[in-house]
Amino acid sequence: MASAKYDVLGIGNAIFDVLLQTDEGFLASHGMTKGSMALIDEKQAASIYKDMGPAIEISGGSAANTIVGLAGFGARAAYVGKVKDDQIGRLYTHDIRAAKVAFDTPPASGGPATGCSYILVTPDGERTMNTYLGAAQELTPADIDPGEIAASAIVYLEGYLWDPKEAKDAFLKASQIAHEAKRQVALTLSDAFCVDRYRDEFLALMRNGTVDLIFANEAELHSLYQTSDFDTALTELRKDVTLGVVTRSEKGCMVATKDGVTSVPAFPIQKLVDTTGAGDLFAAGFLFGLVRGAGHEKAGRLGALAAAEVIQHIGARPQVSLKELAQTNGLPV
Amino acid sequence: MASAKYDVLGIGNAIFDVLLQTDEGFLASHGMTKGSMALIDEKQAASIYKDMGPAIEISGGSAANTIVGLAGFGARAAYVGKVKDDQIGRLYTHDIRAAKVAFDTPPASGGPATGCSYILVTPDGERTMNTYLGAAQELTPADIDPGEIAASAIVYLEGYLWDPKEAKDAFLKASQIAHEAKRQVALTLSDAFCVDRYRDEFLALMRNGTVDLIFANEAELHSLYQTSDFDTALTELRKDVTLGVVTRSEKGCMVATKDGVTSVPAFPIQKLVDTTGAGDLFAAGFLFGLVRGAGHEKAGRLGALAAAEVIQHIGARPQVSLKELAQTNGLPV
Repeated sequence: MASAKYDVLGIGNAIFDVLLQTDEGFLASHGMTKGSMALIDEKQAASIYKDMGPAIEISGGSAANTIVGLAGFGARAAYVGKVKDDQIGRLYTHDIRAAKVAFDTPPASGGPATGCSYILVTPDGERTMNTYLGAAQELTPADIDPGEIAASAIVYLEGYLWDPKEAKDAFLKASQIAHEAKRQVALTLSDAFCVDRYRDEFLALMRNGTVDLIFANEAELHSLYQTSDFDTALTELRKDVTLGVVTRSEKGCMVATKDGVTSVPAFPIQKLVDTTGAGDLFAAGFLFGLVRGAGHEKAGRLGALAAAEVIQHIGARPQVSLKELAQTNGLPV
Repeated sequence: MASAKYDVLGIGNAIFDVLLQTDEGFLASHGMTKGSMALIDEKQAASIYKDMGPAIEISGGSAANTIVGLAGFGARAAYVGKVKDDQIGRLYTHDIRAAKVAFDTPPASGGPATGCSYILVTPDGERTMNTYLGAAQELTPADIDPGEIAASAIVYLEGYLWDPKEAKDAFLKASQIAHEAKRQVALTLSDAFCVDRYRDEFLALMRNGTVDLIFANEAELHSLYQTSDFDTALTELRKDVTLGVVTRSEKGCMVATKDGVTSVPAFPIQKLVDTTGAGDLFAAGFLFGLVRGAGHEKAGRLGALAAAEVIQHIGARPQVSLKELAQTNGLPV
């Protein structure tokens, strides 16, 4: 196995976030399910946006947030995702490259606009996402560069990729190339409703070895195994995957292997502002720990640290150097 | 004089802010003058942006920020400024209308893109702006609706309008209509370098009665009268204008008339994050006090309150209800 050019390469829906702090009433009056990600079409996007108050814009996208976090820790990171060559796509491209992430997916020159997520943040810090996939739907297997995939120690995929129709083929192609090159493949389950849409397919990916490592939060895990009992779900997860990491908000995380389960506490915070990106940044820290060979417990702590940073401000991209933050907290970088 | 439809109508350069927290080294290596606003062309904008780290985007524009602040206090507010009908222009239009500001200036369908300011915020909270005027240059006297101007109790203009060549004609047209309708005209001097570019013209506007009320910070006042002595400058200001309001950062403000000078302290803050919009939001609070007939001292306190809110987060638009904030602090709304 050749030495890796990238520590982690992520593939996901490239989404620009339009964020707004609002109240529960807005969610209720628009029939939104708090804490979830709903897919919307262009018409619905226009309707939701029209009703929203003044917003701020920050690049997002689940896997992209994770990859930016990894680069922030000092990892060599690359991203594959599709924007359009429009103003928002150019802002997006700037931000991810400025975060020192290799990003070479050609933008779409025609078709729908760069994807946007309209994110409502309620006073409790919970975020509710309404995502217009836009150009992200144009990601195809042709965007997967076999050389780049084979040169990445870990390929990280988001469950959301199962939504746009050709992206799942890109996902499967990437996994096959990665495994042929003896690399690891990680998947985040993304969202409980996403799991509900693709439960059997996700379980098949785990059981047939398409993915080696799973990231899930409690709701996603419960949805995956259709049980409200955490221990039952965790036991199933351990059977189905080599390494499973379950995030549990303020209860920290559980790192599960065939050999056992390691529990890692959450990192203390001063004030919860916006949970957008919490899982994404947890994955960033955990994967960083893995590629540095830090062990599961320290990897979990790095994940908790990055998640704690991102939930204390608006938006899913870190606002400080994660490398310095880890150093300050005595964690390996 | 007919009763007013709007308390304040603002006219300014409609600018979308691209903000980034960075270090002093970035300013030094790009030859930027800390705390100032520099005009840049499209090529310089591309060059600065290319070197910037990941940013966040929030609608801005000096007079627009003030008008949004006024609406946040509960005033009836309108804005005149030019964006292009592009993605960024549509974000901008959404944000100002969502803030309950009447905004009906037709967007440019061709020509340069919506204007952007690349704003570098240093660890001391100071902001350094690099503004590409873009479509803001397309504002002309034809965009000034005489009926709307005549129906506004105060017309608020920004000194920055002296930069785009036809906007100053729009400015003068608006002032003339306002005075014919027995309305008041306010001007912010905007920036010490802007004052340096147009010193004689600004002094003429004050002395010939084109403007009745001046907002300035200390640097702008010193630049206007080319003196480093504050008292000398303040004395000159009192001769030249009916009402002059001078902001002095943490030292509060001075409200100067022919009859005397009222000093109002700054509002205490927990942490200075980003001074972008400090002067704009001070003007919002002060003008709100004026239109509510609150007196100069209370108007100054309302200005200080709004400025304190905006400098404790990134971006020049308020993140809370200024009306509720004023109520909480026992100020008139």
